Amino acid sequence: MRVEILAVPGLPEVQPGDDLAALIRAAAGETGPSVVLAVAQKIVSKAEGAIVDLRTIQPSALARSWAAEGNKDARLIELILAQSRRIVKMDRGVIISETHHGFVCANAGVDQSNVDQSNVDQSNVDQANVPGGDFATVLPADPDASARRLHASLGCGAVIITDTFGRPWREGLVDVAIGVAGLEPLEDLRGRVDRHGQKLSSTIVAVADQLAAAAGLVMRKAEGCPVALIHGFEWQPAADPSKSTGRALLRKPEQDLFR
Amino acid sequence: MRVEILAVPGLPEVQPGDDLAALIRAAAGETGPSVVLAVAQKIVSKAEGAIVDLRTIQPSALARSWAAEGNKDARLIELILAQSRRIVKMDRGVIISETHHGFVCANAGVDQSNVDQSNVDQSNVDQANVPGGDFATVLPADPDASARRLHASLGCGAVIITDTFGRPWREGLVDVAIGVAGLEPLEDLRGRVDRHGQKLSSTIVAVADQLAAAAGLVMRKAEGCPVALIHGFEWQPAADPSKSTGRALLRKPEQDLFR
Repeated sequence: MRVEILAVPGLPEVQPGDDLAALIRAAAGETGPSVVLAVAQKIVSKAEGAIVDLRTIQPSALARSWAAEGNKDARLIELILAQSRRIVKMDRGVIISETHHGFVCANAGVDQSNVDQSNVDQSNVDQANVPGGDFATVLPADPDASARRLHASLGCGAVIITDTFGRPWREGLVDVAIGVAGLEPLEDLRGRVDRHGQKLSSTIVAVADQLAAAAGLVMRKAEGCPVALIHGFEWQPAADPSKSTGRALLRKPEQDLFR
Repeated sequence: MRVEILAVPGLPEVQPGDDLAALIRAAAGETGPSVVLAVAQKIVSKAEGAIVDLRTIQPSALARSWAAEGNKDARLIELILAQSRRIVKMDRGVIISETHHGFVCANAGVDQSNVDQSNVDQSNVDQANVPGGDFATVLPADPDASARRLHASLGCGAVIITDTFGRPWREGLVDVAIGVAGLEPLEDLRGRVDRHGQKLSSTIVAVADQLAAAAGLVMRKAEGCPVALIHGFEWQPAADPSKSTGRALLRKPEQDLFR
């Protein structure tokens, strides 16, 4: 088996209201039914207008207090709190929360990098230990719906929307799939036997996350390459498209040992 | 950028004492300095003799009680406890622990799949919800040393030893790097600027884990393909080989919000 991951260069700066499928088709050409398309969350959020003008935000007392302690932008903290349905950890300058979708990640997916900051207050950049500026992106409202729309428009085999998450216990960020269309995100190897005739136990592989991480190898953040094509990977087609979602990768609360 | 991941078929069943580098060279051919070699932990453990005969194990009271509750093999539970330096969670039939190396994973890396079970007690297979048998592999004693040995013998650009770990909050397993030689496992993008001139903050990418996940796409467990070659990935060479290790991917206790 040979899997190829290709960066798709040449995408223009994505603006709210842009037809993202058309921009991807123009940059990547026609993709076939054997191709998995990986798209970084940031450009999906931009096309969908999931950009917040921080000047419209009134920070709460909690946001102001946390921001003052960590020398951060209180408006940004308020936005992170508003994007969260549960705070998992809030310690040592770090906010890890569960978003309204159910993703557990730092800063609820709120991010100021790779956003056009038309009114950057440069004093803020040095003070606040954040890229600074008055604009931040939030996660797409429904990344699975975003993936389904791109999948339907582009005719590729499958689509994953990726974002870059931290993990407990391990240093560094990896890309994961937050939206999925066209493939089973979890490949269930249980019941298969190994070469010694032993049944494999507890082997459900998060294929969509492995694809996202592989795509991350060619999507270099600073170089603005938010689209990758994956050729040669044979996946299980979506048996029930309504369940073949990024949401299926979220551990159910009752099975989560880390709540 | 174009990254290719190739499965290396044709590796024989690995036995304790085998020269793993020679087996890999025979199956994969000569690899060049631009190639990252990914090797599954299981065959490294086998070659190094990290296989335990469960008949030599006397289960403790804790192991017997936990095994009885979950209908598991008490000898296997005892081995998991012995491979751990700290139990992180022990609930609902699941043991998540920190190994003596510092890896936090299920069952301390103890595994019965893909191991030759010369004396399989078939009644055990159905009773115990484990593949069954009298043998289990444990993690290599020093996966970074294992990676360095393969790196030195094979002359490839870099080596990662991979294992398949679960994660909190997300369903399914992904491959991660437990041993590394020849590359910086963490790529630090801090200080770089995005296309809008904004500094990127908090962007340290776990490149070795992304490579491991990518390799996992072609290493299908049941099909016994424990070696993959990654072509076309440009990595940061190891500035200080003594720090370019799988160990560097372990979050330091004082920075770990999840202890």
